[in-house]
Amino acid sequence: MEKPLKYAVFGAGSWATAIVKMLCENLNEVGWYMRSVYTKEHLIREQHNPNYLSSVEFHLEQLKLSNDINEIAEYADVLIFVIPSAFIHSELEKLTIDISEKIIVSAVKGIMPESGLLVGEHFHNFYNVPYDNIAVIAGPCHAEEVALERLSYLTISCSDSNKAKAIAKNLSSDYINTKISDDIIGIEYAVMLKNIYAIAAGIAHGLGYGDNFQSVLMSNSIREMKRFIKKMHHMKRNINNSAYLGDLLVTGYSVFSRNRMFGNMIGKGYTVKSAQMEMNMVAEGYYATKSAHLLNQKNNKKTQLPIINAVYDILYENKNPKKVFKKLTEKLD
Amino acid sequence: MEKPLKYAVFGAGSWATAIVKMLCENLNEVGWYMRSVYTKEHLIREQHNPNYLSSVEFHLEQLKLSNDINEIAEYADVLIFVIPSAFIHSELEKLTIDISEKIIVSAVKGIMPESGLLVGEHFHNFYNVPYDNIAVIAGPCHAEEVALERLSYLTISCSDSNKAKAIAKNLSSDYINTKISDDIIGIEYAVMLKNIYAIAAGIAHGLGYGDNFQSVLMSNSIREMKRFIKKMHHMKRNINNSAYLGDLLVTGYSVFSRNRMFGNMIGKGYTVKSAQMEMNMVAEGYYATKSAHLLNQKNNKKTQLPIINAVYDILYENKNPKKVFKKLTEKLD
Repeated sequence: MEKPLKYAVFGAGSWATAIVKMLCENLNEVGWYMRSVYTKEHLIREQHNPNYLSSVEFHLEQLKLSNDINEIAEYADVLIFVIPSAFIHSELEKLTIDISEKIIVSAVKGIMPESGLLVGEHFHNFYNVPYDNIAVIAGPCHAEEVALERLSYLTISCSDSNKAKAIAKNLSSDYINTKISDDIIGIEYAVMLKNIYAIAAGIAHGLGYGDNFQSVLMSNSIREMKRFIKKMHHMKRNINNSAYLGDLLVTGYSVFSRNRMFGNMIGKGYTVKSAQMEMNMVAEGYYATKSAHLLNQKNNKKTQLPIINAVYDILYENKNPKKVFKKLTEKLD
Repeated sequence: MEKPLKYAVFGAGSWATAIVKMLCENLNEVGWYMRSVYTKEHLIREQHNPNYLSSVEFHLEQLKLSNDINEIAEYADVLIFVIPSAFIHSELEKLTIDISEKIIVSAVKGIMPESGLLVGEHFHNFYNVPYDNIAVIAGPCHAEEVALERLSYLTISCSDSNKAKAIAKNLSSDYINTKISDDIIGIEYAVMLKNIYAIAAGIAHGLGYGDNFQSVLMSNSIREMKRFIKKMHHMKRNINNSAYLGDLLVTGYSVFSRNRMFGNMIGKGYTVKSAQMEMNMVAEGYYATKSAHLLNQKNNKKTQLPIINAVYDILYENKNPKKVFKKLTEKLD
């Protein structure tokens, strides 16, 4: 490659902000699209995101900020999407330029709720992006710890290993170790599924189950995740690698995880609606639960998903969490 | 079997006390050997263990208490040893009766520090107990949660599945789910190794590493554990079952784990000696680290054990934890 590729981040949540920070360690300029005019103006005035990771100070000369998605998409060669899956569809509808030759990186922690497609599949199907140009960033990585520059590990997956390496290099720093993978499908599913298991962990906690049970739940979750991903995309992978198991653990054991918090409220007796109102947001795992359930329903080779089914029954079938979990405990081992 | 087998527990720590409680849910009488005369007298006077799980009330008519190890060994058919590995050798030296026809159950969370033998191997080699009569109890299970009757899962392993089933049945209750396994060797190693990884997790925490790193450390730990056990005893096992991964997680993520606490002090700058004095006890993982390191040294087919080696270098070679962990972070992924 002759000219260095230009990078841009789409989204202004905590994970988007963390990724911009990582890129700023390596690049002279980073494009950054955000919907909110207020956020952009605040960034220009105060050099930090008003809503997320506000301790992270940016150098304005490194940022190409815009509220116009087309301007930033035009500008960059590598487009990193970090928008909640519930909103990505409506954001992408604003795109009018051709992005078929861009490199698309998904840091969306879910799948398209409307279609059940992985984010990569969506870009491939609707924007003619070849699969070789699609990559995924996976943790385990709380954005908050990136802000604190605490050592974190990322896995960048792309079927073209040179692209994975190039992206990984631009995200690496003193506090970010990276590795690459070619399992874009499996890792995208893992990123989505872990949020369901984090909701399950939260429900269990809310119902009064203890640490002994949590560890059994996590042990069963990783086995269930392995079965699910294997059915969806069979290939050799070590499910205990950081991008799968590590990411599950950092989410499932974190008291800060929004998915776990959401589950906790459900376990304590909140309805789905009241929990969502109280949190003033929708946990990714809420949509993921429906998508995973539907994907398994559609699949001819259905697999046993006792944990996902339990969460589905509670969130979408209005079943009693205590009773559902009592039954679930008999299926775990 | 015509006559129901008699069970006895040897030891009076928290895990021993929890196992006595589980058995008392099912059996009319449980033998219980403890070294301390004071503990026995306190139990008789107050119906609870003075030092551990003191909220658990026992019915004296269910307990056959003694400070004489031979009396209890003579009495029972199933001998459950729950003595820290550092003390089991000296306790067993008091045994004068023949126990070669007893069923021996290890709930010791370590291996014999003098010989590097698994507890089961020790009973086989020195007490002529056939391997078919040797079983292991594994968690994930904090004793404290058994006291609270919070749902917990145990795995009972024995090469004779009927014996495993019988023991499992007598430990099961409303709050204890059990499963059986035939991997006594792998599970004994897992029980031992998890304490080393809990020390590593504690050191990392003490040094200021965050949750992102912890999850990477656990993900690498389970892969290292799998490699270690596979070298020691090759058989088909799912390392993500609760007895391996679950037990690792409940220990590695627990702030109450004595091994994690010990590691935390080391990470914060205590010497091994001062940490042990401060805690007024020796963490099982301390011995396990040396044993695991020696076992791997002796093995012709050495395997990569970066985490165990890092802990060994810190605990036994007086290396600087900060530097050792900095190097370790480059080996993890």
